[in-house]
Amino acid sequence: MVSAVDLEARRKAAELMRKMFSGVAEEIQREGRPVFVMPKRTLSNTIYDYKNKLLLLGPETLKRSFTDVNEARKFMQTVLMASIIYDSLVNNEYPTIRDLYYRGKHSISYRSSSGREVHENTWDEQKESDSVIRDLEVFLNVLREELLILSKEKGKVVGNLVIRSGDDTIDLSRMGHGAYSIEPTPDLIEFKDVDAEYVLVVEKDAVFQQLHRYGFWKKNKAILITSAGQPDRATRRFLRRLSDEYNLPVYILTDSDPYGFYIYSVFKIGSITLSYESERLATPRAKFIGVMMTDVFGDDVFREMLKDKDSKKELGSIARGLEKLAKKKPYLTEAERRNYIIKAKQRDLERAVELIGYNVADVCLDNAEYKNKLKKKEGLTGYPWFQTPEWVRELCVFFKTLSKLEIEAMASKGLKFLADHYIPEKISTGDWID
Amino acid sequence: MVSAVDLEARRKAAELMRKMFSGVAEEIQREGRPVFVMPKRTLSNTIYDYKNKLLLLGPETLKRSFTDVNEARKFMQTVLMASIIYDSLVNNEYPTIRDLYYRGKHSISYRSSSGREVHENTWDEQKESDSVIRDLEVFLNVLREELLILSKEKGKVVGNLVIRSGDDTIDLSRMGHGAYSIEPTPDLIEFKDVDAEYVLVVEKDAVFQQLHRYGFWKKNKAILITSAGQPDRATRRFLRRLSDEYNLPVYILTDSDPYGFYIYSVFKIGSITLSYESERLATPRAKFIGVMMTDVFGDDVFREMLKDKDSKKELGSIARGLEKLAKKKPYLTEAERRNYIIKAKQRDLERAVELIGYNVADVCLDNAEYKNKLKKKEGLTGYPWFQTPEWVRELCVFFKTLSKLEIEAMASKGLKFLADHYIPEKISTGDWID
Repeated sequence: MVSAVDLEARRKAAELMRKMFSGVAEEIQREGRPVFVMPKRTLSNTIYDYKNKLLLLGPETLKRSFTDVNEARKFMQTVLMASIIYDSLVNNEYPTIRDLYYRGKHSISYRSSSGREVHENTWDEQKESDSVIRDLEVFLNVLREELLILSKEKGKVVGNLVIRSGDDTIDLSRMGHGAYSIEPTPDLIEFKDVDAEYVLVVEKDAVFQQLHRYGFWKKNKAILITSAGQPDRATRRFLRRLSDEYNLPVYILTDSDPYGFYIYSVFKIGSITLSYESERLATPRAKFIGVMMTDVFGDDVFREMLKDKDSKKELGSIARGLEKLAKKKPYLTEAERRNYIIKAKQRDLERAVELIGYNVADVCLDNAEYKNKLKKKEGLTGYPWFQTPEWVRELCVFFKTLSKLEIEAMASKGLKFLADHYIPEKISTGDWID
Repeated sequence: MVSAVDLEARRKAAELMRKMFSGVAEEIQREGRPVFVMPKRTLSNTIYDYKNKLLLLGPETLKRSFTDVNEARKFMQTVLMASIIYDSLVNNEYPTIRDLYYRGKHSISYRSSSGREVHENTWDEQKESDSVIRDLEVFLNVLREELLILSKEKGKVVGNLVIRSGDDTIDLSRMGHGAYSIEPTPDLIEFKDVDAEYVLVVEKDAVFQQLHRYGFWKKNKAILITSAGQPDRATRRFLRRLSDEYNLPVYILTDSDPYGFYIYSVFKIGSITLSYESERLATPRAKFIGVMMTDVFGDDVFREMLKDKDSKKELGSIARGLEKLAKKKPYLTEAERRNYIIKAKQRDLERAVELIGYNVADVCLDNAEYKNKLKKKEGLTGYPWFQTPEWVRELCVFFKTLSKLEIEAMASKGLKFLADHYIPEKISTGDWID
């Protein structure tokens, strides 16, 4: 009943594991000192490659030695997890990371050197077992999905795209009003035929439904994807593969707020703390098309601010290039703004500072109460890939107006407006942030 | 680009709206006293039909009169919302309830009788506009989806089932490793061909993925659905239609905890406060197959409790039939329980009392601290459809053990165990709760 694709993936993964662990096994049989060497998954060993817009793991490695008392526990956990995953592979199981946590969770009883009976748990929290799975991904240089580890999956897609998944060939342009729900192991998908000019990723499922139903992807020869909120790994990997293998431009459409900007950032770069994933899950060519703060407000407040010499000085090197930005006209009228805008919350501001750094908040934020609450974020420099004139402007307008806007507001102005005017115009005029 | 199905649905809905509002329009043109009469959506007008296991709206009605100063605002909101929905229908829009909120939100300015200029908002919160949409559903006797109002949609399905959606015919047995994501307007789906013996609904997407990948639905001739957590309206309506139109048994598999039991309850009966939806969204024939508390622990603690005469007396009429329940053996060993069980939280207990009533908690709960915290729930009688011997036993074991268990634990014991033993055995022996 199981697909041939899965059987082949299992065979390959099990073989890789045998190969990578054979050294350790031999060392144990020789009663030697077994040790793992793997890249360090630390912040200090994470490098942002400005040119290729990628997060990479640096050259630092760590050792896990069985005979070092400080490392024995981690060594045990690594071997235990590897054996559970290997068993799952050969027994046709499809565990989730939650399963792997449950499967490995037990007490090991032994006598200590002083003769006392000791009980030690393999792991207590799923946090611990998840971390071991990440170690193994880095050690084996595979994504966990290639080890047939499954997870829940929210991503959906429609468009002129034929894929092969499992034993089936599926035409994603023939999904009716529904959509194709992406599988949790997107590396096992084979793209058979793609006839599209770009990929549009919509953060919100409800807006995806509207655009789909309206025939947006047919009219515009687009592939339409939704992540239904924060993107999961499979949706990210699926997008990356589409973009790579067919050289397709990728546009991301989110709410106009720091959480939306962050979702874009996850698609494009990934997260600093999980940089080893980014190398394969992130889509460096993804562009943010909106909704921009400047689509809502234009950039007058921002240009006002630039006139102030002190402000510019305080922005420092980041201020270079700001004046060269083309002027932006808002898509919304004053009356529409009044009805559609939502007041920003404290946590939106905190997220904004995490993205752009405290400096921009300090210069652009006029509200003393909010500013005071942000003091604890002083010194934060933000993500390197947000340090561009375009993003400084976006976040500056955010700090000035303390407002946010949902994509739905653009659909409320009219689905025709969103589908036939806003999105196509932004794409055709290149009004995006890269 | 829009499907013929949608055009026809629009035409029908717009016609219905014209018909239902023509009386009001005429009354307004005559400068008379326009008034709406519609069923009351109140708790007191909600009836649980024990025989058919359905929540129904009772015979009480309410009037919304334009010339009554207390009702004028609600009258205005109803007419405003109806006109926005009507416009959307004729303009090929697919609004969400969020859109409808945005579209109608504005200030109405007028001079009061004293000559003062007054500004009144049509509505402030989405809560208000949502309530008006519900009124219209009841007034028109349709689901909002039939008015082409869309929403985000989480439900997925795979199985031997061919459907027609939009202009496409889709074979849901040919989805590869992915799945078919149900459309937000399930009444527009046409079921073409179903070859299945039952429907299995799995609460958790990750477990759905595992069973799908394992070939469960092929082996067992089942249709496999996941609600990915709390079921949304479209998933519920889709299930109801499948069950009705093909006379298929429906089994629900959730976590073993009061939230899981509640999810089952939403599928089967719906919610008391939205009973008007239940008439068409609920699936009365849905059965709970697990995970039961007694699948985890057996029912020894419960039988112990029954020996206590006082306890039985306190349970009152609910105690009748408890002794006739067939004895239950647990599926898990003591060691497995130790690794898999999660401690119940205060909010789990509160949810349990909402389902079964305070009385059962009072009798079965030994932990004094928890009991004390539940005092505020005293007097709660629970949902009528949970007042059965089987559910008293389940919740009693829950209160006794203060434990819960995820479906994943059953998959951790082995996907083979879950797919080839646990689920088929429970179905073939009739070990479910109806």
